[in-house]
Amino acid sequence: MLKPVSQPFPLGLEMLYLVGLGLGDAKDITVKGLEVVRRCSRAYLEAYTSVLTVGKEALEEFYGRKLILADREEVEQEADNILKDADISDIAFLVVGDPFGATTHSDLILRATKLGIPYRVIHNASIMNAVGCCGLQLYKFGETVSIVFWTDTWRPESFFDKVKKNRQNGMHTLCLLDIKVKEQSLENLIKGRKIYEPPRYMSVNQAAQQLLEIVQNQRMRGEEPAITEDTLCVGLARVGAENQKIAAGTLQQMCTVDLGEPLHSLIITGGSMHPLEMEMLSLFTIQENSSES
Amino acid sequence: MLKPVSQPFPLGLEMLYLVGLGLGDAKDITVKGLEVVRRCSRAYLEAYTSVLTVGKEALEEFYGRKLILADREEVEQEADNILKDADISDIAFLVVGDPFGATTHSDLILRATKLGIPYRVIHNASIMNAVGCCGLQLYKFGETVSIVFWTDTWRPESFFDKVKKNRQNGMHTLCLLDIKVKEQSLENLIKGRKIYEPPRYMSVNQAAQQLLEIVQNQRMRGEEPAITEDTLCVGLARVGAENQKIAAGTLQQMCTVDLGEPLHSLIITGGSMHPLEMEMLSLFTIQENSSES
Repeated sequence: MLKPVSQPFPLGLEMLYLVGLGLGDAKDITVKGLEVVRRCSRAYLEAYTSVLTVGKEALEEFYGRKLILADREEVEQEADNILKDADISDIAFLVVGDPFGATTHSDLILRATKLGIPYRVIHNASIMNAVGCCGLQLYKFGETVSIVFWTDTWRPESFFDKVKKNRQNGMHTLCLLDIKVKEQSLENLIKGRKIYEPPRYMSVNQAAQQLLEIVQNQRMRGEEPAITEDTLCVGLARVGAENQKIAAGTLQQMCTVDLGEPLHSLIITGGSMHPLEMEMLSLFTIQENSSES
Repeated sequence: MLKPVSQPFPLGLEMLYLVGLGLGDAKDITVKGLEVVRRCSRAYLEAYTSVLTVGKEALEEFYGRKLILADREEVEQEADNILKDADISDIAFLVVGDPFGATTHSDLILRATKLGIPYRVIHNASIMNAVGCCGLQLYKFGETVSIVFWTDTWRPESFFDKVKKNRQNGMHTLCLLDIKVKEQSLENLIKGRKIYEPPRYMSVNQAAQQLLEIVQNQRMRGEEPAITEDTLCVGLARVGAENQKIAAGTLQQMCTVDLGEPLHSLIITGGSMHPLEMEMLSLFTIQENSSES
C-alpha cells in the first residue's frame, strides 16, 4: 500500500496565491479569488502574457485595492521581491485566464517552494478551455502552437509542422497569437533607453496572412502544404467578454474578417468534423458581402 | 472586405445562460456567474457529468436560491422544459467546470437557437485546463480520452490507440474517468422500476488497473504496448478543491496510491518531458513506505 500523497503544504498558513482572473472583465474573477485578492497584503498583476478587456484601474476599483503591475522582467529576475514576506503574510499573483493556462507560472511556484513558502492556485477559465465556445470539441485539440510576429529577418515556420501533425491525426490546432508589451525599439535598446513601444497584439488577419505565406513558400519548394486557402478555420476575439466575436470560414476569409479589438485567437480545424461541431460552427459562419463574390 | 461577424444575439435580452461553476466548492463560481444565478427566474444544475466537493444544498445556501436538478434524461429529452419562457425571462443552466469543457452542451444551445432564444456562456475553470496544476504543460496534451467502467461483457480497449498516438507524438494524455449516476440495475431496468444504484466514480486505482490489463492483453497478443508498468503517470483528485491531491509515479504505483474521495483524473505522460515539467512533478512524487520496496 502506497502512502497517501501529502501535498507540499497544509492550508491555512500564510502563502502565495496564484489567482486566475478568467477572461473578459473584472467580474470574471471567482468569489474565492476575490476574497483572496481583497484580504492579501500585496497583489501583483501579471501584465505581459494576456490582457482583459478592462485595464488595471477598472480591476482596482472592483477589487477595492491597489495592484502592483508585474512585468516579465520583474517576474523572471526579481521573483524574490514578489515572494518577500509571503511566509508571514498572504501575497496574491493575479494572472489573466488561469495560472496554468497558456502560460504556466511554474517558475514562481518552484521558487516559492524552495524558499519554504506554501502556495495555492485559484483556477479560472483560460483560452485553452474557453475556445470550446465555438462548438469544436476540446478533447479533439492537438498540440497548441504560438504564432509570433514576423520581422524582416526572423520568419519562423517551424510551428507549421505541429499543425500538420495535428491535421494528420484529425485534431484541431489552437493558435495563440503574439503579444508584444514593453518592447524597446532596436535603437532604444542599443542606447539603453528605457523607452517602450506601444503594445501590439496580433490579429486573426495577420496570423492568417502569415499562414498563407507559409503555404505559398511550401508550394514554391514543391512540398504539399498541410492546409490551403480553403481550410476551415475559426477566428475568435475577446472570448468570454460581452462583445466576444467568433467567425468560422476559410483561411482566406480569415485574412480580412473584422473581429475588432484584441485579444484574438485562431483555430485551424482538424479536417474531419462531428456533425454537432459543424452545426455549432454554422452559427458563426462568415457572411460575404453581396457586392463581393 | 468581409462583413463583421454578428453574433447570433445581442446582449441585454432575456436569455439562456450557461454558467460554469468551476471546480471545488460553491465559491468557485465567478462573480459574474453568481449575479446571473441570483437574478434569473429558474436555475438548473446539471448533475450527471461531474460533481463538486459540495452538494446541491451547499450551493443553494451560498447562491441564496433554489436549484432544479437536471439529469441526463431531462436535458436530452425534455430540453424544451428547461428552455420554457427563456425568451421572456432569464434561465440559468449550471455546469460543474466549464459549459464547454469535458462535456459540451452544444445540444442545448442549438435547441435554444432554433427556438430563437439568445444564449450566453459564463466560462470557468474546467478539468481540461486545471490539470495544468501538476506542472505538465497544457499545450503538450494530445487527444483527451475517457476510461469507462468495464463490465463482465463490455471491456472496451479502443481508446488505447489514442494514448499510443499521443505518446508517439510526445504528447500527454488526459484520461477522464467514468461517472455513473442514476444508473439502474439490469433487473430494475428490465422490470421498468425507477430504482437507481448509488453513484459510482472511477478512481485512479481502478483506471490504472484496467490500463495494466490492456497492456497485458496486448503482450499476450504479441503486440508491443504503448505504455508499461513503469510509464510515468499523474493521478489527480478533487482538482481545485482545498483538499486536492496530486501524485506522480509509475502506472503500477497508480494502482494502489490513495487519493481519497472523487473526482479523480489520470494523466499518462508523453515520454519526453521539459526540465520544468520534471521539476514540478517532483513536488508530487509518491513516497514509497520503507516497509516496502
